[in-house]
Amino acid sequence: MTRLRFAPIPASLPASVPFTGPETLERRRGAAFRARLGANENGFGPSPLAVEAMARAAAEVWKYGDPDSHDLRAALAELHGIDPAQIMLGEGIDGLLGLLVRLTVAPDEIVVTSDGAYPTFNYHVAGFGGRLHKVSYRGDAEDPDALVAAADDTGARLAYFANPDNPMGSWHSGATILAMLDRLPAGTLLVLDEAYAEFAPEDAIPRIDPEDDRVIRMRTFSKAYGMAGARVGYAIGPRELIAGFDRIRNHFGINRTAQIGALAALQDKAWLELTRANVAAARLRIAGIAQDNGLSALPSATNFVAIDCGRDGSFARAVLSALEAQGIFARMPGVAPMDRCIRISCGPEAELAAFAEALPLALTRARTA
Amino acid sequence: MTRLRFAPIPASLPASVPFTGPETLERRRGAAFRARLGANENGFGPSPLAVEAMARAAAEVWKYGDPDSHDLRAALAELHGIDPAQIMLGEGIDGLLGLLVRLTVAPDEIVVTSDGAYPTFNYHVAGFGGRLHKVSYRGDAEDPDALVAAADDTGARLAYFANPDNPMGSWHSGATILAMLDRLPAGTLLVLDEAYAEFAPEDAIPRIDPEDDRVIRMRTFSKAYGMAGARVGYAIGPRELIAGFDRIRNHFGINRTAQIGALAALQDKAWLELTRANVAAARLRIAGIAQDNGLSALPSATNFVAIDCGRDGSFARAVLSALEAQGIFARMPGVAPMDRCIRISCGPEAELAAFAEALPLALTRARTA
Repeated sequence: MTRLRFAPIPASLPASVPFTGPETLERRRGAAFRARLGANENGFGPSPLAVEAMARAAAEVWKYGDPDSHDLRAALAELHGIDPAQIMLGEGIDGLLGLLVRLTVAPDEIVVTSDGAYPTFNYHVAGFGGRLHKVSYRGDAEDPDALVAAADDTGARLAYFANPDNPMGSWHSGATILAMLDRLPAGTLLVLDEAYAEFAPEDAIPRIDPEDDRVIRMRTFSKAYGMAGARVGYAIGPRELIAGFDRIRNHFGINRTAQIGALAALQDKAWLELTRANVAAARLRIAGIAQDNGLSALPSATNFVAIDCGRDGSFARAVLSALEAQGIFARMPGVAPMDRCIRISCGPEAELAAFAEALPLALTRARTA
Repeated sequence: MTRLRFAPIPASLPASVPFTGPETLERRRGAAFRARLGANENGFGPSPLAVEAMARAAAEVWKYGDPDSHDLRAALAELHGIDPAQIMLGEGIDGLLGLLVRLTVAPDEIVVTSDGAYPTFNYHVAGFGGRLHKVSYRGDAEDPDALVAAADDTGARLAYFANPDNPMGSWHSGATILAMLDRLPAGTLLVLDEAYAEFAPEDAIPRIDPEDDRVIRMRTFSKAYGMAGARVGYAIGPRELIAGFDRIRNHFGINRTAQIGALAALQDKAWLELTRANVAAARLRIAGIAQDNGLSALPSATNFVAIDCGRDGSFARAVLSALEAQGIFARMPGVAPMDRCIRISCGPEAELAAFAEALPLALTRARTA
């Protein structure tokens, strides 16, 4: 296949998908899920102001979106008390992570992350020919010391750190993050993924000067703002780094209606507060369901809860599979020992009740498998 | 700046934007445009069925979109009488062109295109370290012979060819395209950009077996379907090539609401017919405006018309600038001799009337500049 040959880096890659979508699973099982609790989506939904703004904007979708995302960036700059030139919008954090790797990592350069952390980041590193070096979680949390040491040892270009963490829901204090920056080797840029920041305790989110050239932060409208399908994320970092994205990004890539929705969502602070309260209540509800089944829920600073199923990865996988058979979409960590857990997204009571109803049988089935 | 250093390819690139958005121009001039006729957007808008479907879906945007775009791909496969595995959805043709270059072009490999053709394609080639080789237009059209000869001479990996052409609106017959494929060197893949296919005469669109490994075709919902802001384009090609995108794409990158809107738009064949008729009428109207001002309009198989301003590039630029000063957003080809023209998108009568009103003064100003 001379003509269809791929360039060397893609030629070396598997055709892989970091996550199988719930729709694909539904098609496989031939029935819709009754609870969609696997993708850390926010089933409490977007602000009604955002919904209204998007519905109103639907007829204007014949226009390309503003490639500068001027209004949305201005609103975000105001929210964070920073300069719009320190913000880059992208097609979700996923899109921005790909661009960041492309911008900063040459083929064969090293990138460090935690074994079991965000697969899509790893996918992008591999996708641009970077070499991944993984450190272990410690106590169900990403390990700042191990990450800094590995960055030092390997001369890593990037170090990925999610705070709060996905898939475990654990978190570190902002002071720990700042201390980590101070010990980061001179050539390493910290990728601080704060997708779940809005759900975290205040002291988990450090104050960092956006011009601090040691770190780029990632935020999103997919989680607390309930707009995962809109594909709007943003990076905060030094102007020089942020400007670099303009060399390579798809300038007209962000959906116009999504930009309008995100801007409206930012105005609705009451909805964000309500969402936080709903998520906090759902975390307690999920922990209660775990307890009712003799399991324990891990503490969470996110909109999901990891439930320790008390055995190994194959047991948890069997639980997950038995939940899926009952119409409950959930996911689980991929790496031991975290894979003793299943991960349940915070959602409305109807979906959590469906999970509560399905879990006992799922556990029975897994125990007798 | 050790830490913020870019990888070699991005480090070699300018921070460039293929197009300045009309919103940026509006902010610069401090006033909104009264006619938005510069970006080949389709001001006749999307199907009301699509608008309704998107408005209805707004509240469900908390869900990620289906990363397989199963339903939309199935509908497109039916439309084209092909297999869904021969279709890849992406964030507009722009997004797909970037992925295609990344998938097939190694750094320093050659890509051929026409000097003055789609800048965003060139942007992506440069963005992945490819080397562009450009041939000249001939008679205001892309020149298949020159392109094939250049591909042969340079051993090009990709050859870009838009049919119908942007920015001139010219087109070649499907027979010419097929003849071009027959003469294409064995190592060259033709990128056939058919963004404007739905506006073209039927015989401009050749029947090609999607498994034909000499070509990948690009289509979009941005033009005839009036959904530029949604960011949904698709590629048609051999399964093996299409599957390659799954190695590198942002799987969850397409907006969920946009997928739903595109699916609804496909059902509304009557709206597509109406749009075609509206666009055909608008082309005549634009030609009439040109004629009223002593100018000539070039024949067009697209939803825009190139108007020959009768002098050189600086004159046309002065006309454009004088139109902008009167609130008319238009663009023009960037390369001589095509840059004697300005390019006007087909839009509703109110916008064309505003253009008709502004053109005489714009010409006077340009002539006395």
